[in-house]
Amino acid sequence: MAARTAPKQTTPPTLEASADGRSIRILDQTKLPHDVRFTTLRTSDDAARAIVTMQVRGAPLIGVTAAFGLAFALRKDPSDAALSAAFRALLETRPTAVNLRWALEDVRNRVAPLPPAQRAAAALAQARDMIIEDTSANRRLGEHGLALLKKLAARKKSGDALNVMTHCNAGATATLGWGTATAPVYLAHESGLQVHVWVSETRPRNQGGALTAWELASRGVPMTVVTDNAAGHLMQRGLVDAVIVGADRVTARGDAANKIGTYLKALAAREHSVPFFVAFPGSTIDWTIRDGVAEIPIEQRSPDEVTCVAGATESGGRAKVRITPPGVAARNDAFDVTPASFITAFITERGVCRASGAGLRRLYPEMTAKS
Amino acid sequence: MAARTAPKQTTPPTLEASADGRSIRILDQTKLPHDVRFTTLRTSDDAARAIVTMQVRGAPLIGVTAAFGLAFALRKDPSDAALSAAFRALLETRPTAVNLRWALEDVRNRVAPLPPAQRAAAALAQARDMIIEDTSANRRLGEHGLALLKKLAARKKSGDALNVMTHCNAGATATLGWGTATAPVYLAHESGLQVHVWVSETRPRNQGGALTAWELASRGVPMTVVTDNAAGHLMQRGLVDAVIVGADRVTARGDAANKIGTYLKALAAREHSVPFFVAFPGSTIDWTIRDGVAEIPIEQRSPDEVTCVAGATESGGRAKVRITPPGVAARNDAFDVTPASFITAFITERGVCRASGAGLRRLYPEMTAKS
Repeated sequence: MAARTAPKQTTPPTLEASADGRSIRILDQTKLPHDVRFTTLRTSDDAARAIVTMQVRGAPLIGVTAAFGLAFALRKDPSDAALSAAFRALLETRPTAVNLRWALEDVRNRVAPLPPAQRAAAALAQARDMIIEDTSANRRLGEHGLALLKKLAARKKSGDALNVMTHCNAGATATLGWGTATAPVYLAHESGLQVHVWVSETRPRNQGGALTAWELASRGVPMTVVTDNAAGHLMQRGLVDAVIVGADRVTARGDAANKIGTYLKALAAREHSVPFFVAFPGSTIDWTIRDGVAEIPIEQRSPDEVTCVAGATESGGRAKVRITPPGVAARNDAFDVTPASFITAFITERGVCRASGAGLRRLYPEMTAKS
Repeated sequence: MAARTAPKQTTPPTLEASADGRSIRILDQTKLPHDVRFTTLRTSDDAARAIVTMQVRGAPLIGVTAAFGLAFALRKDPSDAALSAAFRALLETRPTAVNLRWALEDVRNRVAPLPPAQRAAAALAQARDMIIEDTSANRRLGEHGLALLKKLAARKKSGDALNVMTHCNAGATATLGWGTATAPVYLAHESGLQVHVWVSETRPRNQGGALTAWELASRGVPMTVVTDNAAGHLMQRGLVDAVIVGADRVTARGDAANKIGTYLKALAAREHSVPFFVAFPGSTIDWTIRDGVAEIPIEQRSPDEVTCVAGATESGGRAKVRITPPGVAARNDAFDVTPASFITAFITERGVCRASGAGLRRLYPEMTAKS
């Protein structure tokens, strides 16, 4: 009997640039996990809309999408005024993730000194570079995180899986490659380390139960979906060996904004001495601010996301159901801030460091002058 | 112009016994908040099924429903064997809430010494007494809790509402009267104290967003529904003045089992010095155990409750949607345990006490010999 190799399942690319540079094709994340649908973005407005509606989401992916949006705007009109207008419109799409601003500034700084006729091509080249760089950063981040997971796994009894909890989706779906929080997990799984993921569903938009569960399942990583409420209980019972989450903005002293609910997991992790890691690329660091609770703007999203839930019906259709009585008030803070003191370590594309200003400056010494 | 009085809205009774004692009519809580439907229970099996399917839920209400179930069983067959069989079947419906066992033992202890011919009537009388006692206990508990809320309100700036967070539904819907955790809030609202409730939706079954929101809205109490994930963030921002939750079982030393997610709120409350109160009647105390984490059985419910959500469609229909990819594993621990050290005080029908064995014994001195 011939040896069989399990088919390598992966998820489709989250973003692909067309050969002519006139459009990008994005995976529409509002349709996942029930439908795999793609949308083509051709203008800056298209890009802004896709970010606002969360067809694309995840701090790194938002940044790259915005960079292409700026390139599309400059193809239409490469003037200073058009550059400024597109920059502003794209920046305003979502307030918390700082990778968006980083990507837009990166493109603007490169193209602004150029003659208008050269700007569109330069912006496009820059946006394309970001795809490569994000994929590569994911990989390096994953390798640094893998080393941490191997250390934790060495403490487990032989045969016991390492239980990693994550929150929201800081996965392949949030980036161009292996994801941030998930990259160490994917590399661990590929390397034969026994790993099991607790996927916290992440209300209100269920990016954990919908997106993280989908991509882990596609790659064959063992996992269990739980409600967000279960995190404290599972840690109290010794069922979690590590928490790894992503970040939307990390301050110069190491406070981290991430999807609402992250902070509760950090509180439980500290109480039960569970290592709590935050994984992100350097573009997530906002060197201009220090106090995350005071200074990071927290996006307020529609109360409808709290009062309604969308999904697949038993008959194969799609539906949205309201779970509250009609007309009740709801509040929807999209992010919360975990102070640096709760974080065991940061995992970045440049290595692992303490969650502190000193730790970050050691990995990003070129930023020292700014912070 | 004549003075107008807003119509007094209230919710329908959760359980009503028929005049002939042959049935009870229960509010079907699986249909709320979208449909107000009643179901008639005539047999012990009916009662057991209503508890298992959570048509009736909430520790005190489960206890009373089970007591009627036992009375129905004895009407059919008052023998010792039938009493034992019905007792066991009803006890096994749900493992965590101890009020169920308390109510069943209360009825059994009363009827077992009687001649079989007198048992059914005695059980029925006992079950009816429980309706009156639970309503009265709610009221007393509410008054003791109101005194606490008044003290907290005195520290607020004039005109600012007192922000009380609750979890799940320990409300009128979980009892025969004002509820446990909600009783102080209802009395505060009636007394003119400005109070606003943060209603945590309470995944997976959304008893907060569905039931607590429904009953608070019916009574005109200002409130806002939030995701469970928001608790840490709101406390970190100083937006919560107190947390009041119910309990399904409290140990002799004061550890409290309550709906999954309660413990995360307790962790956040301690971190931010927010008073964390647990409200329950004496029947919730399990004097036979001390260590809640080690000794309270945690009900495991169907993974479907995690992967699917039911609600009302835009067209006015009802639907259930799956929010995860098909076939993924999910785990559904229904409760968690908050150690006594996290609890600021207990609010009971006999008064307020410290969350400790000594505190409980002071209020329930007759139990000292047992514990």
